[in-house]
Amino acid sequence: MKRITILGSTGSVGRNALEIISNHREQFKVVGLTAGKNVDLIEEQINSFSPEVVAVADEAAARELQSRMRGHAPSILSGHDGVAAVAGYRGSEFVLSAIVGAAGLVPTISAIRAGKTIGLANKEALVMAGRIVTEEAKKSGVRIFPVDSEHSAVFQCIEGHRNSEIRRIILTASGGPFAGNDISELNDMKPEDALRHPNWQMGKKITIDSATLMNKGFEMIEAYYLFNVPPERIDVLIHPQSIVHSMVEFLDRSYIAQLSLPDMKGPIAYALSYPERLDNVMQGLDLDGIESLVFKKPNNKSFPCLSYAYRAMESRGTMPSVLNAANEVAVEAFLRGMIRFTEIPFVIKEAMEKHDVLPDAELAVILEADRWAREKAEEIIKEMKN
Amino acid sequence: MKRITILGSTGSVGRNALEIISNHREQFKVVGLTAGKNVDLIEEQINSFSPEVVAVADEAAARELQSRMRGHAPSILSGHDGVAAVAGYRGSEFVLSAIVGAAGLVPTISAIRAGKTIGLANKEALVMAGRIVTEEAKKSGVRIFPVDSEHSAVFQCIEGHRNSEIRRIILTASGGPFAGNDISELNDMKPEDALRHPNWQMGKKITIDSATLMNKGFEMIEAYYLFNVPPERIDVLIHPQSIVHSMVEFLDRSYIAQLSLPDMKGPIAYALSYPERLDNVMQGLDLDGIESLVFKKPNNKSFPCLSYAYRAMESRGTMPSVLNAANEVAVEAFLRGMIRFTEIPFVIKEAMEKHDVLPDAELAVILEADRWAREKAEEIIKEMKN
Repeated sequence: MKRITILGSTGSVGRNALEIISNHREQFKVVGLTAGKNVDLIEEQINSFSPEVVAVADEAAARELQSRMRGHAPSILSGHDGVAAVAGYRGSEFVLSAIVGAAGLVPTISAIRAGKTIGLANKEALVMAGRIVTEEAKKSGVRIFPVDSEHSAVFQCIEGHRNSEIRRIILTASGGPFAGNDISELNDMKPEDALRHPNWQMGKKITIDSATLMNKGFEMIEAYYLFNVPPERIDVLIHPQSIVHSMVEFLDRSYIAQLSLPDMKGPIAYALSYPERLDNVMQGLDLDGIESLVFKKPNNKSFPCLSYAYRAMESRGTMPSVLNAANEVAVEAFLRGMIRFTEIPFVIKEAMEKHDVLPDAELAVILEADRWAREKAEEIIKEMKN
Repeated sequence: MKRITILGSTGSVGRNALEIISNHREQFKVVGLTAGKNVDLIEEQINSFSPEVVAVADEAAARELQSRMRGHAPSILSGHDGVAAVAGYRGSEFVLSAIVGAAGLVPTISAIRAGKTIGLANKEALVMAGRIVTEEAKKSGVRIFPVDSEHSAVFQCIEGHRNSEIRRIILTASGGPFAGNDISELNDMKPEDALRHPNWQMGKKITIDSATLMNKGFEMIEAYYLFNVPPERIDVLIHPQSIVHSMVEFLDRSYIAQLSLPDMKGPIAYALSYPERLDNVMQGLDLDGIESLVFKKPNNKSFPCLSYAYRAMESRGTMPSVLNAANEVAVEAFLRGMIRFTEIPFVIKEAMEKHDVLPDAELAVILEADRWAREKAEEIIKEMKN
C-alpha cells in the first residue's frame, strides 16, 4: 500500500490522480491533501479518501472546512506553513506535487527534504530552482518522477537505455490552438480562442502557455534538470496530433518514442505506480483511425517564447525565475483582457532585459528574483497601457 | 574485443555487418565467415578481415578459394559440415546467423549448442523450429538478439520495461510496392515490379515476401518465440514510410515505438554491440522533412499470406515449416516467371491444406516436413500449369 500525499488536490492533476487512486484503492492510500480555497471540493475529497492531514490556503477556509466535518476528521492546517507541514508529513512516502505556479516550489522542496518520493507536476520547481531542487533530491536520496506527458514520455523512452548514449531529446508540442497561425493573425486572438486547446483538457494558465509555446520552453528547462541533457541537445517539434509525447534519439540514431492518447492520467499513473504499470489507465490508441502523424519545426518568429526560454537557460542563475514570473503576470493580464496575445512575449522579453542575473545559490535569491520580476512585469504592462 | 563469426557473409546482412565492423575494428574481430559460391567476394572479405576459419558451399568453391590464397590463409572448409564447424568454432563468442532461407536453420542450432551469443537475421530458424531453437538457447544459456528492423525495434521498446506488462506487439509493415493495390491489380505484377521495394534494399526473396506480406507473417511467428507473446496479441499495421519499425503497447495503454531511417545497419549494429550503442550507425532522421506517418490495417483479402501465417502458428508442430517451404518454392517459381504474383498464396494454402501436422518434437521431423512441402509445392505448381 503506497501512502500518497497530493499537493494541489483540487486542481486538474490532483483530481485526475484521485480518480486513478479511487480505481486502485488496494494499492494506494491517500494520507495528505492540500488545496487552495475550493472548500466544497476538498470537503468531498476528504469524505471520499479520509486523509490524515489537510491544508488549505488560509485560516478562513480552514475554519469553514472544519465546521463542515462530521465524525472522524483529518487535522486541518492552513497557509504556507500548513502546506509545508502536509508536504513533509511523516505518514506519507510519495508526494504528488501538483500546485500550479511558483507557489508549488517551496512545498516541493519541503517534501524532498522530508525524503518523500516526488511525482512532479509543478513545473516551477525545476524552472525556477532546478539546480537547488535536484541537489536537494540528491542529498536526500529522493527520486523525482515527471508527471507531465512530455517528460514522462522521455522517462519511459530512456528506461532500460543508457543516459550517456542520448544524442538528443525531442520534446513534442501540440502547438496549441494557434499552431498553424502566422504572427499577423495572432494579434487579435482573445482569451477564449487561446483557451480552446485542440487536444488537452488542462488548467487556464498552462493552456495559454501551450498556445505561446512558453510551456515548451519551460519543459526544455525541466528536461535539462530531469535528464541531465544540455539545452543544445533538446529540440522541439510541433506535432499537432499530440500522440507522440516525446522522443529520444540515441547515439546510433535510433529513436525511441512514447505514444498514447492525450490523457494526463497516463503520466500521473506511471509516476504513482512506477515501476509497475496500472491496467487500462487510458483508452487504447487506434492508430489506424488517426489520419496521420505530422512533425514540424516551430515557427520562432510567431512564437518567440521558446527562444526566450533557451536564453534564460543559457543565462542561468535567477534568469529562468524571471522568465517564469514575468510570464505568469503576462498570462494573467492577457486572461483579464489587459494585454494582447502577442504582448505576452513582449512583457517577458522586457523583464528579462531589465534583469541583472544573480547566481542561484540560495532559494531566497530565487524567490526575490521572482518577486522582482512580478513587480517589473506589472510595471511594463502599466507602461504599455499608457 | 568481441570475436565475431558471420554465417552468410556475402549476403546483404553479412555485407552490412562487415561494413559496420570495418568502422569499429577496435571493438570487433572477425574470426569466422561462411558463404555460398561467391568466391570473389569471400576472397575479398578474407583479405580484408583475416578470419581464422571460413566455409563455403562445396568442395569446388573451397578448392578455388584455396588456390587464390597467398601467405597467411584461414582454414577453408566446405559443405554443411564445414558451415556447422564454423558456426561452432570455439574462437568466436558471437555468431551472426545471416544465411538466407531454410539452409540457415541447422548452422544456427550448431552455434547455439556451442554456446555462442546469437545475432539472428535468419528467419527460418524461428519460423520452422522456434520451439526447438528457443529451448536449445535456454539449455545452453544463450541469448538471441534479433537482427531485423521489426524485432530489433520491439526489443529496444521492451528494454527496461516488464515483459509481463506487454499488452500487444504491433509489427509495422511497409506493405511493399503493392501496399495501395487491390487484389484485381496484383494479378499482372511482374517480378521486376515486386522487386521495386520503396524503402528497403534487401535480397530478392525477402523483397517478394515483403510484397506478399508473408514476411510479416513470419515475423509474427518470430515475435512469438523471441518475446513470448502469443499470436493473438501480435498485430500488424501497414506503415508505408518505414520509419516506425514496430511498437509495444503496455498494460496502461502507453506505447513505446522505435523509429529510424530504414537501414538494416541499425539492428545489425545494435545486436553486435549490445548493450552499448555505436556512434552514428545510421543517418539522422529528419522528422520535419517527412510529410507524415500513416498507419493502416492490412488488407487481408488482397494479401492473404498474413492469415496463413496465423493459421500455421495456431496449428503449430510442423505447419509453420510447411508454410515456409511452400512459400520458398512459390516465390522462386514467381521469380522464374512460372506463376503469377497472386498464385504465391494459392500454392502455400494448397500445401498447408494437404499437410498432416506432426508435433515439432525433433529437428528431423521439421526437416522432413520442409522436404515434403517443397515437393508438394512443386507438384501444385506443375498441376497449375496443366
